[in-house]
Amino acid sequence: MKGVIIAMNPSVRIIDISHLVTHGNITEGAFILDGAYGYFPAGTIHLAVVDPGVGGTRRPILVETDRHIFVGPDNGIFSLIAARERLVRVVHLIEEKYFLPVVSRTFHGRDIYAPVTARLSLGALPALFGPQIDTQGLAAIESPPLERTKNSISGSVVYIDSFGNLITNITKDVLAGYPGRVFRVRIKTAKISGLMESYVGARAGLPIALIGSAGHLEIAVNRGMASKLLNAKTGDKVLVDIMR
Amino acid sequence: MKGVIIAMNPSVRIIDISHLVTHGNITEGAFILDGAYGYFPAGTIHLAVVDPGVGGTRRPILVETDRHIFVGPDNGIFSLIAARERLVRVVHLIEEKYFLPVVSRTFHGRDIYAPVTARLSLGALPALFGPQIDTQGLAAIESPPLERTKNSISGSVVYIDSFGNLITNITKDVLAGYPGRVFRVRIKTAKISGLMESYVGARAGLPIALIGSAGHLEIAVNRGMASKLLNAKTGDKVLVDIMR
Amino acid sequence: MKGVIIAMNPSVRIIDISHLVTHGNITEGAFILDGAYGYFPAGTIHLAVVDPGVGGTRRPILVETDRHIFVGPDNGIFSLIAARERLVRVVHLIEEKYFLPVVSRTFHGRDIYAPVTARLSLGALPALFGPQIDTQGLAAIESPPLERTKNSISGSVVYIDSFGNLITNITKDVLAGYPGRVFRVRIKTAKISGLMESYVGARAGLPIALIGSAGHLEIAVNRGMASKLLNAKTGDKVLVDIMR
Repeated sequence: MKGVIIAMNPSVRIIDISHLVTHGNITEGAFILDGAYGYFPAGTIHLAVVDPGVGGTRRPILVETDRHIFVGPDNGIFSLIAARERLVRVVHLIEEKYFLPVVSRTFHGRDIYAPVTARLSLGALPALFGPQIDTQGLAAIESPPLERTKNSISGSVVYIDSFGNLITNITKDVLAGYPGRVFRVRIKTAKISGLMESYVGARAGLPIALIGSAGHLEIAVNRGMASKLLNAKTGDKVLVDIMR
Repeated sequence: MKGVIIAMNPSVRIIDISHLVTHGNITEGAFILDGAYGYFPAGTIHLAVVDPGVGGTRRPILVETDRHIFVGPDNGIFSLIAARERLVRVVHLIEEKYFLPVVSRTFHGRDIYAPVTARLSLGALPALFGPQIDTQGLAAIESPPLERTKNSISGSVVYIDSFGNLITNITKDVLAGYPGRVFRVRIKTAKISGLMESYVGARAGLPIALIGSAGHLEIAVNRGMASKLLNAKTGDKVLVDIMR
Repeated sequence: MKGVIIAMNPSVRIIDISHLVTHGNITEGAFILDGAYGYFPAGTIHLAVVDPGVGGTRRPILVETDRHIFVGPDNGIFSLIAARERLVRVVHLIEEKYFLPVVSRTFHGRDIYAPVTARLSLGALPALFGPQIDTQGLAAIESPPLERTKNSISGSVVYIDSFGNLITNITKDVLAGYPGRVFRVRIKTAKISGLMESYVGARAGLPIALIGSAGHLEIAVNRGMASKLLNAKTGDKVLVDIMR
């Protein structure tokens, strides 16, 4: 992919964010992208490929916001971006003359997304690559909706990072809806009272709850792995009791 | 290695392809290089080091093709390049004045290949670094030759990628020698009828056969790891029956 | 972190050294940094973050030597640099106006070290970022001191690299204090006579001792992992008998 890009635009700058996404884990890719993209300068083109459905029916797309362009498969990897940003347009990438001459059905990163990204970096307009499609119709990642009552929030673990921290779909904005209240977080056998501000606030080995650096409630263990301690996995239920 | 290179040529562009080759697995390195190099622009210098024999008798070399230069150990890592490209020259790197002042016997990547690569990127001619050697005499990776009959091809698994796909030494060019025929692939306990065009064509969990993105017959599992499902390893026999 | 840096200095050059340090392993980070930094050109700014204590009491610092600047936490990650180089100054990073507007307590790499590094790359002077602190007061990594007698040196394994090689706190400079002598290295159940010059000198599968590429005594196994063969871990005792 990098070869394709620099062969077309020798002066482009390429920045690696991660090549360690668990294979086929679209949600993990979506969270990594969501935590990183906002820090990049206006005009950045983000090429993101976690693509277990390559060669199937999912659409290759381009997503344009006020500041950035995102290129990759329409399989949910851009769904957190879509929830956070105003989308200027979404384009279905179908103009084959801008792809590599031979397009495999196993490596669209190289054959479609890389040459499209290179052309965008040279100033090509998004509309060049195909018809505009409904910005509301993007694929979503599987994440059961939150259930909220006056006294509780029920969510789930959506992603486990490489430190074993359990990231949930409960954001700090949701918790901000309960100003001045104290929270108790329950997951598996653990009951955690109150939120910490950092990983080092608690005794080593005990689970804590905190708002992570991308704004999501997470369960962590100081100098340990929460995923192992709690035997937790993606999809596990997380309850937040709104106490006094 | 990167420090050595940019200290000598501050304006060079360095592109990382992979730092995740299984330690000492020359074949894996050769396949990754073979799948990537052709997409890079003319004039690219490819520095490739998987070097379990560092400090021993294998030669440090430079391989020049019409479009590219390759720098690294003569241990088979360039053998797929040599089989595919016309070699303009191969140079044995012996001119120590172009190495780092102290050459360890444990890290030639830093002490030999990096400074040679930096000088090449500044325009030094390949012949500067040592005597030309026989382009036919390059080390090969261990890969038993194919056995071909009118009705079958017998090859083997030469590399398992990080997705668990089993890549074989049977290429699409070999299969093209049987135009219009239907293939059945046998490996371990699996019998796979016909080739798919992508990973998503089959039921999740079933082994399929297809031509991978670098042109080799491979055995894969949609949303699974063929290496685990079939308990397969490098060297395992792969049979292709030429059916009707 | 990269986004923060290039948003502030679009023409900066960023070089990745490693993103594979074992989580929270400060000693491993210190060794990787120590083995790499000296090869980079004068003026390089090294941003190094292995930071299990993020959000706690450890200080964010900047370390200036004659040739380089180092930015990161004061938790021992720069202790090998401090032992090797003359420190021009150490600065406690406290000037919040040069951090990101919101500083989390979980990701100082992004919120403190990246923007400070970007400003340094634009020419900002180290003194801008906070008060100078005692160059002797830097945190150290846990490494029990060597015990030396006329006939023996007692040290320990301080780091295990990704090849399974056991790197000790006994340096080639220490061994140079016994000129012309023959060494026997003992670790766990192994007794190793003499030092090899490379990994390939011994029979495959046997443990050997040698001086590694960063100048430390290490125990290795040709085409194997010493850590597994000897069931060794960080902190294990290593004895060097000074023979004839």
